[in-house]
Amino acid sequence: MPVYRLDLAYDGTGFHGYARQPTVRTVQGELEAALSHHVADVETSVAGRTDKGVHATGQVVSFHSVDELDTRRVQRSLNGQLAPEISVLAFGRAEDDFHARFSATGRRYVYRILATEAPDPFLARTTLHVTEPLDVATMDRGVRALLGEHDFAAFCRSAEGRSTVRDLREIAWTAQGDLLELDIEASSFCHQMVRSIVALSIEVGRGRRPDDVFGEALASRDRATAAGAAPPHGLTLTAVSY
Amino acid sequence: MPVYRLDLAYDGTGFHGYARQPTVRTVQGELEAALSHHVADVETSVAGRTDKGVHATGQVVSFHSVDELDTRRVQRSLNGQLAPEISVLAFGRAEDDFHARFSATGRRYVYRILATEAPDPFLARTTLHVTEPLDVATMDRGVRALLGEHDFAAFCRSAEGRSTVRDLREIAWTAQGDLLELDIEASSFCHQMVRSIVALSIEVGRGRRPDDVFGEALASRDRATAAGAAPPHGLTLTAVSY
Repeated sequence: MPVYRLDLAYDGTGFHGYARQPTVRTVQGELEAALSHHVADVETSVAGRTDKGVHATGQVVSFHSVDELDTRRVQRSLNGQLAPEISVLAFGRAEDDFHARFSATGRRYVYRILATEAPDPFLARTTLHVTEPLDVATMDRGVRALLGEHDFAAFCRSAEGRSTVRDLREIAWTAQGDLLELDIEASSFCHQMVRSIVALSIEVGRGRRPDDVFGEALASRDRATAAGAAPPHGLTLTAVSY
Repeated sequence: MPVYRLDLAYDGTGFHGYARQPTVRTVQGELEAALSHHVADVETSVAGRTDKGVHATGQVVSFHSVDELDTRRVQRSLNGQLAPEISVLAFGRAEDDFHARFSATGRRYVYRILATEAPDPFLARTTLHVTEPLDVATMDRGVRALLGEHDFAAFCRSAEGRSTVRDLREIAWTAQGDLLELDIEASSFCHQMVRSIVALSIEVGRGRRPDDVFGEALASRDRATAAGAAPPHGLTLTAVSY
């Protein structure tokens, strides 16, 4: 049966997350409703089940279709039907064993913070605004302790007995003027892992915690040593690797 | 009586324009409601009364206050009270004869178009999306005919007997990849002037009208020779000069 891959961008502001839920607006719900005009009994898989309010510029979805699809026509039709907050960036036939979630070898996220007195209305949906200055060099030095394979239990919400060991391949805080950005890539992430790393980074950037707190938190494997989770709207899934 | 100047940015998507109206949400309405906590009987003037759905990154507002204001405290308070779609970028005492509208010597706008098959959810609020390619070099060549002092009647909606002569100082269409941008500066603009120039530019960019149509439209002084007005959400007031 043909397998199709769909690359997706969405502004998550108006959605209760990616994953379909019975009574609320979700990205998966809207996507599958639009797909149902072209594919019978469609069941989609997704690379990253983003939380409520989280965005994507490089989400990947896959599904089987009994019939072969005219991908160019279907992509155009989907983009015509979907709300302006969702865009099908690319759509094509994949290898028969392709699975958006299980074939993925890495996920990349970015978290954005604007550190200024006055907010920016055009960044308000996608960027956390803080009015205190943040020491980005210290934040960047601090998070380097997380590189490599570790038990990230202190940065995971509700692991429910599953492993919290992850391989973190890239992590860096950079700044362009007042706009700070965390770039992070791992094999996969446990629930709220990026936002938990961001919350602790902000504590370090404000000087409330020392920059070696990341290593301590890892060693503790205790969520209580972290600093909760930063708000979802600063977070964007930017790429999935296969 | 002290005069204050307030520099404003707003995402106009959720507003029925800048100017206060009795029953709908407007930028001026929200701003004056927030200001009323600090200034008695506040009456504001504005450099550019933007239409419903039009944005600003460099709007300027002025008002008198009987009492001297602690501008730093008031700015922080306003940014705390206002919706995330409005930001007070700067706030300070102005010369006693400063008037946001009458002291202004120029207004600058930008109009953005994304010309791609797939839309971009993060540009959807501020950028017109078109799926046909546009010939930006021809558009740019065409609009140069508008430079200088002309009667822009063909590009003005509802002039109501007022002069439609304006001094257009700068105009250029440029492209960065699929993102097209019109930069335009004039002493002032008549109603829907920028959006009317954009609508005709799009006709030229699609090859439906020749690039000398701008000069013809000017000479005709007849709105029927233009091509209506482009949608408001691509338009942003970027600067006011004094």
